[in-house]
Amino acid sequence: MFIINTITSQTTTFYYIVSIFIKMKKVLITSKVYDDSFDMLSKDFEIIIPESGNFSKEEMIEKISDCEVLLSMFTIKIDRDIIAAGKKLKMISNYGVGFNNIDVKYATERGIVISNTPDPVTEPTAELAFALMHALCRHIVELDKDIRIPNKIKWGIMQNIGTTLTGKTLGIIGCGRIGQSLARRAVASKMDIIYHNRHRLDQNTENKYNAKYVSMDELFTSSDYISINAPFTDETRHLIGRKELAMMKSSAYLINTARGAIINEHELAEALKNKIIAGAGIDVYEHEPCIDPLLLTLDNVILVPHIGTATYETRQDTAIMASQNILDFYAGKSNYHRVN
Amino acid sequence: MFIINTITSQTTTFYYIVSIFIKMKKVLITSKVYDDSFDMLSKDFEIIIPESGNFSKEEMIEKISDCEVLLSMFTIKIDRDIIAAGKKLKMISNYGVGFNNIDVKYATERGIVISNTPDPVTEPTAELAFALMHALCRHIVELDKDIRIPNKIKWGIMQNIGTTLTGKTLGIIGCGRIGQSLARRAVASKMDIIYHNRHRLDQNTENKYNAKYVSMDELFTSSDYISINAPFTDETRHLIGRKELAMMKSSAYLINTARGAIINEHELAEALKNKIIAGAGIDVYEHEPCIDPLLLTLDNVILVPHIGTATYETRQDTAIMASQNILDFYAGKSNYHRVN
Repeated sequence: MFIINTITSQTTTFYYIVSIFIKMKKVLITSKVYDDSFDMLSKDFEIIIPESGNFSKEEMIEKISDCEVLLSMFTIKIDRDIIAAGKKLKMISNYGVGFNNIDVKYATERGIVISNTPDPVTEPTAELAFALMHALCRHIVELDKDIRIPNKIKWGIMQNIGTTLTGKTLGIIGCGRIGQSLARRAVASKMDIIYHNRHRLDQNTENKYNAKYVSMDELFTSSDYISINAPFTDETRHLIGRKELAMMKSSAYLINTARGAIINEHELAEALKNKIIAGAGIDVYEHEPCIDPLLLTLDNVILVPHIGTATYETRQDTAIMASQNILDFYAGKSNYHRVN
Repeated sequence: MFIINTITSQTTTFYYIVSIFIKMKKVLITSKVYDDSFDMLSKDFEIIIPESGNFSKEEMIEKISDCEVLLSMFTIKIDRDIIAAGKKLKMISNYGVGFNNIDVKYATERGIVISNTPDPVTEPTAELAFALMHALCRHIVELDKDIRIPNKIKWGIMQNIGTTLTGKTLGIIGCGRIGQSLARRAVASKMDIIYHNRHRLDQNTENKYNAKYVSMDELFTSSDYISINAPFTDETRHLIGRKELAMMKSSAYLINTARGAIINEHELAEALKNKIIAGAGIDVYEHEPCIDPLLLTLDNVILVPHIGTATYETRQDTAIMASQNILDFYAGKSNYHRVN
């Protein structure tokens, strides 16, 4: 007898039935995405996946014992207990680019390969940063709210005035894949690009975006928009707080689609309240899913719930990449996205 | 004695005092923009301008009698009565690209030159269309609202899922200046461009945006996003109604930053209510400033109050262009933006 509720799509069902007769390798997938997200694994693997949501830690520990592969979501903690229970475990294929959810040190000691999925996050995250910039400069959120309240909106050519992105300076903190994807968009909007990175980009890349490398101080003082696209590290923790916000133009906007704790969130809320800067667009929070209570009351900030990669296409592309990493590992290829 | 409340900036004040002693030509400006918006005219003209808002029709008729130039806002009706009262009138410099506010036929009969300001509207209008596309695909307005309501938002990787613009097809109806400015942005977001125009674009322009010329029917059926960037004419009135909306993909979004009556607004509201299409971003309305009551109740539409050109920069650029048209006319130049 088999548990049909671990099955997701018709393709998977077919291969699941096959697996009853032929002993297949098993992959434990911690979380449900879409019905067909992991179909490409079903030919070679018996797939253990929850009907919806995520497996609990206890469920993972129970089910992992005879699995060769764990396909884990970046939001699910994969600690020593789980890894230790995976007696046959050869690989952890992480769904997501960040992999600080995994006890990498212990997995590596055990000789378990870990991979991640860097490519699919680039475009949607840059797109979200750009979306927040646009919504801020043209007051989209505020105007849509007010227009639905009778007699609230004033119409007329000197009413509801915003600013344009065209001709403004975008300062990018962390000009890697996502930062460059944002720069490409901003160039098409005729913005000027300045950036700061640990390592300066090569000349060709700078030329492509007409991007100028500047010090952090110059970035803070010269930018009309600042977008954070840096990884979260000890160095970037609280990179932006009261002091840096005070250096920014009072007309400037701050965008964070990277990690919450790169900004001191309460100091940002205070700066917004006191109009030290014009506004902010925030996707990530210091104590997610909690948000600083002051921030929630302000109308010069746009807040969204960590949706940088939250698109149907990205969720599917990431599932494909996490699955392909597994197939490539078993095919003995070397060009999959191994991180340890 | 002179009326100081017709004065706006220090520069203008200085030249106004000069004008008391030296008889200067007069320009009647129908509406206040910013204090310094028309400074470039003050050296050559005595400027008659309201302290705030707009002159009434009666005020215009009274004040225009000894003016050589009328600088009119595109939102202010300049009818036969006003033009007839302008006995010395040589030029109407319209602030805005559309000039259907002016009785062009009568002005032309009187030998009065009319000019407009096409350039400044291009970038901000395309920017707004792009802003609406971004806000729609990532549910920015809805999420910002819900995140501020305690316990309303669900966090998690399968929550708050949007779609990406990247890889989608943008159908542009009317691929002139504004349409092409939007295409330039969309290409940088890796969208595919199709368009329909009265006249097909030349090969070089098509190649620039990798834009494919298609029939209206194909545009409706193939687009993931449709942006209207066509002028309002007898031909484009109610170009989109129930029939065309039914041809669109149920996942598609419609954007209108052109003129309200190009869409049958109530039929759009019904289509949105019945999920015939996924959503819409609307800046202009059929009976502006009135909005179809059904439309105001829907959460799959983003509504803004005709802000295509409502940015500080555009308001100033337009004032400069309307002023420059006047200076160029008096300098005997031929390359200003004459429309009659």
